[in-house]
Amino acid sequence: MIAVDAMGGDNAPEQIVLGSLLASRLGISIKLFGCKETIISILDKNDFKWKKYDISILDADQIIGMAEEPVNAVRKKINSSIVKAIQSVKQKKCKAVVSAGNTGAFMAAASLILGKKPEINRVPIIGVLPIKDKKKVLCLDIGANVDCKPEYLVQFAYLAKEHARNVLNLDNPRIALLSNGHEEGKGNMLVKKAYELLKKSDLNFVGNIEPYSIFNYYADIIVSDGFSGNIFLKTIEACAQNFITQNYEIGKDGALLLGVKGIVVAVHGNANAQAIKNAIILARNTVVYEENFYGVCEKSIDRTITKDI
Amino acid sequence: MIAVDAMGGDNAPEQIVLGSLLASRLGISIKLFGCKETIISILDKNDFKWKKYDISILDADQIIGMAEEPVNAVRKKINSSIVKAIQSVKQKKCKAVVSAGNTGAFMAAASLILGKKPEINRVPIIGVLPIKDKKKVLCLDIGANVDCKPEYLVQFAYLAKEHARNVLNLDNPRIALLSNGHEEGKGNMLVKKAYELLKKSDLNFVGNIEPYSIFNYYADIIVSDGFSGNIFLKTIEACAQNFITQNYEIGKDGALLLGVKGIVVAVHGNANAQAIKNAIILARNTVVYEENFYGVCEKSIDRTITKDI
Repeated sequence: MIAVDAMGGDNAPEQIVLGSLLASRLGISIKLFGCKETIISILDKNDFKWKKYDISILDADQIIGMAEEPVNAVRKKINSSIVKAIQSVKQKKCKAVVSAGNTGAFMAAASLILGKKPEINRVPIIGVLPIKDKKKVLCLDIGANVDCKPEYLVQFAYLAKEHARNVLNLDNPRIALLSNGHEEGKGNMLVKKAYELLKKSDLNFVGNIEPYSIFNYYADIIVSDGFSGNIFLKTIEACAQNFITQNYEIGKDGALLLGVKGIVVAVHGNANAQAIKNAIILARNTVVYEENFYGVCEKSIDRTITKDI
Repeated sequence: MIAVDAMGGDNAPEQIVLGSLLASRLGISIKLFGCKETIISILDKNDFKWKKYDISILDADQIIGMAEEPVNAVRKKINSSIVKAIQSVKQKKCKAVVSAGNTGAFMAAASLILGKKPEINRVPIIGVLPIKDKKKVLCLDIGANVDCKPEYLVQFAYLAKEHARNVLNLDNPRIALLSNGHEEGKGNMLVKKAYELLKKSDLNFVGNIEPYSIFNYYADIIVSDGFSGNIFLKTIEACAQNFITQNYEIGKDGALLLGVKGIVVAVHGNANAQAIKNAIILARNTVVYEENFYGVCEKSIDRTITKDI
């Protein structure tokens, strides 16, 4: 079952509930967290047969706004939809959680409630950049940590390596640093120091990558601080929309938080129903990947389901 | 007369000399710096009538390589084409200088020989981003200073404002900070501190701009450190080439160094003849703009000449 924060995001609850409905029609079990009455009225309005799908609702009467200070909001609003949804994962009632709400609050709540992996200082967000020939490149941090120390970037690389096994089916992914030139010695102080650390590590570090080369598949994983990574990915999205009016949205369909003890998918605040549906599928697929890897395969879930969408 | 470093760049001297030839055919006076014999043989090979254009050559027998440590190279190789070309501007024999060589060395030589404006700590590179409806946005720093202090960004904003009067014909351009979100409070530590300083300044500061909004013309000038700015512009170029195979190269045609006492145009290392020609035109136009503004109009140069190209 996937926990969905029905009240978070610019288009909540309408688009969140609709997206959940779309996902549930694919056979995914969903628990919606938020104002029960409102959620039911949206479901009734859009699909009078919604009860035949596996959708349940947990009433949560508080909402954390998009502009609230994250940590305080999480500590005070213990009955908020975000907090309740994450708690359901902690309590193993749900296997993953999805929210389009206040990203800072969502990340803070995920770190506080689920806990960080012990070897990690910061929790990064990882996104998938689709390139030519259906190849995929994992990018992190794409927005969680705008100021990083060199060792964080190394930690991000290890987290991404582990994740690449699931998503890219690669055991030894090529890891590159986002930089202003491919040569060693290029980069700001952060990148230069991270370069030294990565070179000494046992990772398959292939050096710096500059944006000219991103579509050339020189790396499977691109590591950066959350500020540069965010500028990088948002620029790609802006260009895609400007040059080709093509839907090439990387973060909007949902991006995973790595380094927390649980599967947490953050969705862009202005997500519509389609993006929510895709984020729920990402959450569900990640559950399946991880359970398969750790040998707890859920046979009832068809891994190929996303092909039909 | 425009000084051109014939020996700098991946495609030097062939493409540099060819680009200079193209520019000279438009009526621009050019002085080429480099190995005289080689330059003459390239000119002879490509246009036996080259002597009817205003092309002169100054022999410079040293070359600063792309990988040399900038400041040392400039101090030691006083007969290099880069150093000689910049000296010709200092000595007022030429009005501007163009090089596709080692950017670090070119910048260092420009700062050392021409001198920085007194109010400036660092010399940024400014580029022009073409957006919809023939609008232009100035972006700086696009690569010169990868590690910046908040006050440098404010200095960049003032330099760009002055420059915008020439290039955009705007007296009070809208200045924005490149950031990971448009809201106040977004950004890394550098951006947050620069935001405070810019808010207090007398500039027309319009706040943060995130990449989603770059094509919406919310700002005339986008300020950033040289690392983020470089990632930003190179990503746009990479996307343009990947999505539409359209020639949308921002830095490659030449970008101006601001804050030095002279007109200095840096060209991307892999520039071809066309890019060199455009960089020379940029240099020439900047000369005309500045002379017009300061009342030293050179009547012999037709400002509309670029329209014919």
